[in-house]
Amino acid sequence: MKQDEEMHDEKRQAREWFVNVQESVCQRFEQLETDSVAGGADTPASFALRETSTRAADGSDRGGGVMAVMRDGNLFEKVGVNASTVYGVLDEDSLHRLAAGKSIDGIRNDPRFWASGVSLVAHMRNPRVPSVHFNTRMFWTPSRWWFGGGTDLNPCIEYDDDTRDFHAALRTCCDRTDGAYYQRFREWADRYFFVTHRQRARGVGGIFFDDLNTGDWRTDFQFVQDVGRAFLKAYLPLVLRRMDEEWMDADREKQLIHRGLYAEFNLVYDRGTKFGLESGHDPDAVLMSLPPLARWP
Amino acid sequence: MKQDEEMHDEKRQAREWFVNVQESVCQRFEQLETDSVAGGADTPASFALRETSTRAADGSDRGGGVMAVMRDGNLFEKVGVNASTVYGVLDEDSLHRLAAGKSIDGIRNDPRFWASGVSLVAHMRNPRVPSVHFNTRMFWTPSRWWFGGGTDLNPCIEYDDDTRDFHAALRTCCDRTDGAYYQRFREWADRYFFVTHRQRARGVGGIFFDDLNTGDWRTDFQFVQDVGRAFLKAYLPLVLRRMDEEWMDADREKQLIHRGLYAEFNLVYDRGTKFGLESGHDPDAVLMSLPPLARWP
Repeated sequence: MKQDEEMHDEKRQAREWFVNVQESVCQRFEQLETDSVAGGADTPASFALRETSTRAADGSDRGGGVMAVMRDGNLFEKVGVNASTVYGVLDEDSLHRLAAGKSIDGIRNDPRFWASGVSLVAHMRNPRVPSVHFNTRMFWTPSRWWFGGGTDLNPCIEYDDDTRDFHAALRTCCDRTDGAYYQRFREWADRYFFVTHRQRARGVGGIFFDDLNTGDWRTDFQFVQDVGRAFLKAYLPLVLRRMDEEWMDADREKQLIHRGLYAEFNLVYDRGTKFGLESGHDPDAVLMSLPPLARWP
Repeated sequence: MKQDEEMHDEKRQAREWFVNVQESVCQRFEQLETDSVAGGADTPASFALRETSTRAADGSDRGGGVMAVMRDGNLFEKVGVNASTVYGVLDEDSLHRLAAGKSIDGIRNDPRFWASGVSLVAHMRNPRVPSVHFNTRMFWTPSRWWFGGGTDLNPCIEYDDDTRDFHAALRTCCDRTDGAYYQRFREWADRYFFVTHRQRARGVGGIFFDDLNTGDWRTDFQFVQDVGRAFLKAYLPLVLRRMDEEWMDADREKQLIHRGLYAEFNLVYDRGTKFGLESGHDPDAVLMSLPPLARWP
């Protein structure tokens, strides 16, 4: 069956999936937060939802979404989970940034775009529980569609077993679709999540992919759904393993400095952040990934 | 007298002046820090000096300087004063960024550059004492030289009298050289120190200038020296006015969030930061401006 050029049905399915991921992640995280205070005197934190909107320079509507943020928790110091769907017309700068190597003649002829995705960053209270980032998205232009996303682990104290287990879960997920994916996407993450000016990785990696279009939308969408499910399978065991460990002031200091590095990466290099800030999306939603507290000594 | 094309003597004078400014600012700030603990039990903080170096991608020497940082003081929570002199060959990206509107044909034919400057950022402990930024520099290429710099005030709580007095001191300084400078450089600061993605200024402004070349190096250098002297005259009275004021937790919260905005500006927009990170200068020196602690709620 020939694909509808506007891909209305595919866009709807993708958008619904991303909202679905947002809801199930928020539910699991809230449950964990509640479990973490069970038996104690503290009240667990919960997610606050806020609608976000995107405006073009001329004030016209470009879509929006829902930002879910849980703050000041016992387990989660700050976690934001955004789902949004935006559309409009690409300007030259965004076009070049997004194209990054691909031919952009087709996009330039009809620069409309549509993008939907879910992204999350979790900054944990206990410095021994790793921070994590996850994100998947579908991008559409009249001449080309693609998926992108990934997840990477950002511990301020690196534990070999955490790194190994996180990567093993991602490998299992990737292998289900294509035996070459894990190696390729893992290396891509190593290149992408690199803080060039400090010549170091921002964390212990994970997977990253962009421009994913095998020609078969259904297969690629299936993979993106698998990555969404794999994220929780890869991350939750690490939280459960570390959340009750005692930590010292020196650990907290390491954590705050590591969060500074994280902020540097997101503000200086991250493509999604740049695209979000340039496309007029709500800056609080785009920058929800920034740490609750960070230190540059 | 025809100017030596390499401008050896002018470069030496400029470099010596910038080092001079660094030394006198450090001395005054240390004195203030000492005064602030007089009669109390605390030991005053003092400046630690560190040599910084710059390396090209191939590892070759591109100069360096001295980074002076005072940390964890009673008055100064973190203040960094960098003086550095760097040189080398501009790559295409840096060339375009620096040229910003000017013709770059001359620079492209012989892309050697030399740059020397002093820059400082002070993050104060008391949220009622404004943060401040100051910087002056000389840039040289075989086909063109210019000066740049400025100073701007970044209070997290804005007091009209502080803003007024700071600007009045800068106006007096500018008027001495050219009656049109203050208005022009004040507006330039308003445009430059603007956080586009939040559609707000990062502070209450000051002056900013770049590409300053009237054709008379001596006049322009004199102005740059005046700006260096004016900085202390404009800023120190505000510190003295506010340093003994009591502050509340709510003030500290405002301060930490305002510092987040400051970090956003420096990492996303600041030209000097971008140039420093791209030119292989010591990242700790380039990012010394980042706040000791910042919050994104």
